Amino acid sequence: MKLSHYFIPTLRDVPSEAEVISHQLMLRAGMIKKVAAGIFSYLPLGLRVLKKVENIIREEMNRAGAHELLMPMLQPAELWEESGRWKAMGKEMARLKDRHDRDFCLGPTHEEVITDIARNFLQSYRQLPVTLYQIQTKFRDEVRPRFGLMRGREFLMKDAYSFHETSEGSLKEYQNMYQAYVRIFSRCGLAFRSVEADTGNIGGSTSHEFHVLAKSGEDEILSCDQCQYSANSNLIQKKQDDVCIKCKKGKFQSYRGIEVGHIFYLGNKYSQSMKASFLNEEGKSVYFEMGCYGIGVGRTAAAAIEQNNDKDGIVWPISLAPFQVALVPLDISDSKVKTVTHALYEGLKKENIEVLEHDKDERAGVKFKDIDLIGIPIRVTLGMRGLAQNKVGIKLRNEKEEKMVDVDQALHNIIETRNELFRKINPST
Amino acid sequence: MKLSHYFIPTLRDVPSEAEVISHQLMLRAGMIKKVAAGIFSYLPLGLRVLKKVENIIREEMNRAGAHELLMPMLQPAELWEESGRWKAMGKEMARLKDRHDRDFCLGPTHEEVITDIARNFLQSYRQLPVTLYQIQTKFRDEVRPRFGLMRGREFLMKDAYSFHETSEGSLKEYQNMYQAYVRIFSRCGLAFRSVEADTGNIGGSTSHEFHVLAKSGEDEILSCDQCQYSANSNLIQKKQDDVCIKCKKGKFQSYRGIEVGHIFYLGNKYSQSMKASFLNEEGKSVYFEMGCYGIGVGRTAAAAIEQNNDKDGIVWPISLAPFQVALVPLDISDSKVKTVTHALYEGLKKENIEVLEHDKDERAGVKFKDIDLIGIPIRVTLGMRGLAQNKVGIKLRNEKEEKMVDVDQALHNIIETRNELFRKINPST
Repeated sequence: MKLSHYFIPTLRDVPSEAEVISHQLMLRAGMIKKVAAGIFSYLPLGLRVLKKVENIIREEMNRAGAHELLMPMLQPAELWEESGRWKAMGKEMARLKDRHDRDFCLGPTHEEVITDIARNFLQSYRQLPVTLYQIQTKFRDEVRPRFGLMRGREFLMKDAYSFHETSEGSLKEYQNMYQAYVRIFSRCGLAFRSVEADTGNIGGSTSHEFHVLAKSGEDEILSCDQCQYSANSNLIQKKQDDVCIKCKKGKFQSYRGIEVGHIFYLGNKYSQSMKASFLNEEGKSVYFEMGCYGIGVGRTAAAAIEQNNDKDGIVWPISLAPFQVALVPLDISDSKVKTVTHALYEGLKKENIEVLEHDKDERAGVKFKDIDLIGIPIRVTLGMRGLAQNKVGIKLRNEKEEKMVDVDQALHNIIETRNELFRKINPST
Repeated sequence: MKLSHYFIPTLRDVPSEAEVISHQLMLRAGMIKKVAAGIFSYLPLGLRVLKKVENIIREEMNRAGAHELLMPMLQPAELWEESGRWKAMGKEMARLKDRHDRDFCLGPTHEEVITDIARNFLQSYRQLPVTLYQIQTKFRDEVRPRFGLMRGREFLMKDAYSFHETSEGSLKEYQNMYQAYVRIFSRCGLAFRSVEADTGNIGGSTSHEFHVLAKSGEDEILSCDQCQYSANSNLIQKKQDDVCIKCKKGKFQSYRGIEVGHIFYLGNKYSQSMKASFLNEEGKSVYFEMGCYGIGVGRTAAAAIEQNNDKDGIVWPISLAPFQVALVPLDISDSKVKTVTHALYEGLKKENIEVLEHDKDERAGVKFKDIDLIGIPIRVTLGMRGLAQNKVGIKLRNEKEEKMVDVDQALHNIIETRNELFRKINPST
């Protein structure tokens, strides 16, 4: 992509409305635009990052044997009355009437719709187990939306739901999803913890949250320095120096975390209230054993920024970066600079490496600031001075030193650098 | 994908609620499930087809130089008051109040939101031209939703918006989008016509609709049998045998069409009412010249079925098929059948060909019925009898004859057959 033909409306100044760094940087980097409180447009650069998170989630959910579907945003009141949540949900659930005066809500979650699908189509144990997921927009009318994508009202979420014959099968799937979540956040290149958690208004008996660690996190996590057991501090009500309740050896360390995922073993809370049953091997009608598994897509992108930033801007992990490589030609009218830039651009495209060329006629300092702000992991500088010695500069966003590389080794070197960054977060590839 | 591990809840009987064939077949093939009037869940098979349409659209929009973004479904009343459409839009636009009693609508279209983005970020002619698009859920509260995805209330749409300095530039982009639409519907493998059309409540002065031809189409299109000029019959009010108004030679033929796309040259209708201006080369503040360009994603999938079906089910064009190849082992416990099926399955996967294996223990007739119903273009039958002579059967969904092919030629033959089907609809690949 050539920057002069793209749409990245960066801002020089820190927007006054933004309290947290991810919100500030997403606005400054031209990733999002506010439409109303807690409601945003994802501009092209922001959407690219969302798609990166989405694709990692999709690949790992498919690998775990889940199947993607797409449920509607508008949901009829009848389904929520069956589960008892039409009354139980407060003002966080936005409601409206259609032109025929029928009641609907904007889906804050999809347990009711998916349970309705299961009871319609899954009649026999032979059709089980089934795990379904979607990546869909949800709406929750927060009292005080803030922090940009960290606490929005309209937001993108991956939610999965599993249907099993027995609680053993369901708990095994819970572990399967747990492992998928570990792979997802590892592949996102993030430092995270899975923590025991409260089940809240979703219900069920077992749940884990996945937290991206960041000094700015809203939640306190206590994590044993010996056995790695972690829990939400409001759940176990332990103090930082207490001895771990399980291994009895380690001490709890306190971290700040941003919740990006939450998995629940539900049992038959929803299947019972909505009369969702199937015939088991003995021909007996029994309720589905269910689980549900959520990830905030935009929130994961925002948490990645909270964890990875410096005074100059975002420092994307390679797997979430909107572009992996930035080409920065400094003397854009020089013919050698032009030729080498063009060759590298085409060479990288051919290798399916996402490259952004800063082809605008601006000073070197301005160009570097732009690339640092939007956080491209690998910056390649092409200047007349370097090229006079047949060298281009390669610099990582999270390192200070620029290394000078021979022009004819540059493409190979960039590809290797990129592969090395991927290997660091994902040893299996 | 193995059918026994997948979720395709097919129905044997024609659902009574479905009046048109695409609605019937989408329900019977387990592609969609009704949630409320005009509101559907897309089940895994249905979602796969939507993604096929989406990806063709995305590739061609990117090729045409448009950039993808994502705007919210909820839109604040203030923006619609600026354009004058908060009052002008009738009950088709669903409205709601948030918990703070602020007015919102569910976006039936996004001219207001995108114009707000343009006036915020595009200050100079140097930043132009810009064309942005999204693939996003919309809501229109139809009086009488029906025909499944053909006239739903919540539906998936691609909408693009262009911003230019001059009307010449804008009209050139209109032609660029027109050509992109021709490529999109060609690549979908559909017979279609572009027709001159009315601009309706979107406004502007020039517009074309794109219609998929089908006997069941709701609109009458008149198309000159000599010069190809086509128009909506309610626009030109010509009779079938009238002489063409342009070339004066041909006669109008009447076709039925299903509208799947609509492009508009808007001029400055929205930029003027919403005061969206930029500084031109002379430093003068002028309004953007705009165009907007829509495609119904689900509607395109439904129209493809209206055009391509027979008594046994759907006949997908290769480019929209949820799977390109179906493997049908007939004697699933036979070891040779198992071995050959496994080898072909893995061989096709390795070539990135989407393959569905009907691995359930059912009679041949039942299996063929399933595969015909969901419309997989290439069916490969593996039976003991054929394999005794080292043969497998290859049959196209839209042909009667099955050809018997040597086992060691089968993979090659399937790949060639698939490539040939693609070449027919897309000569450039």
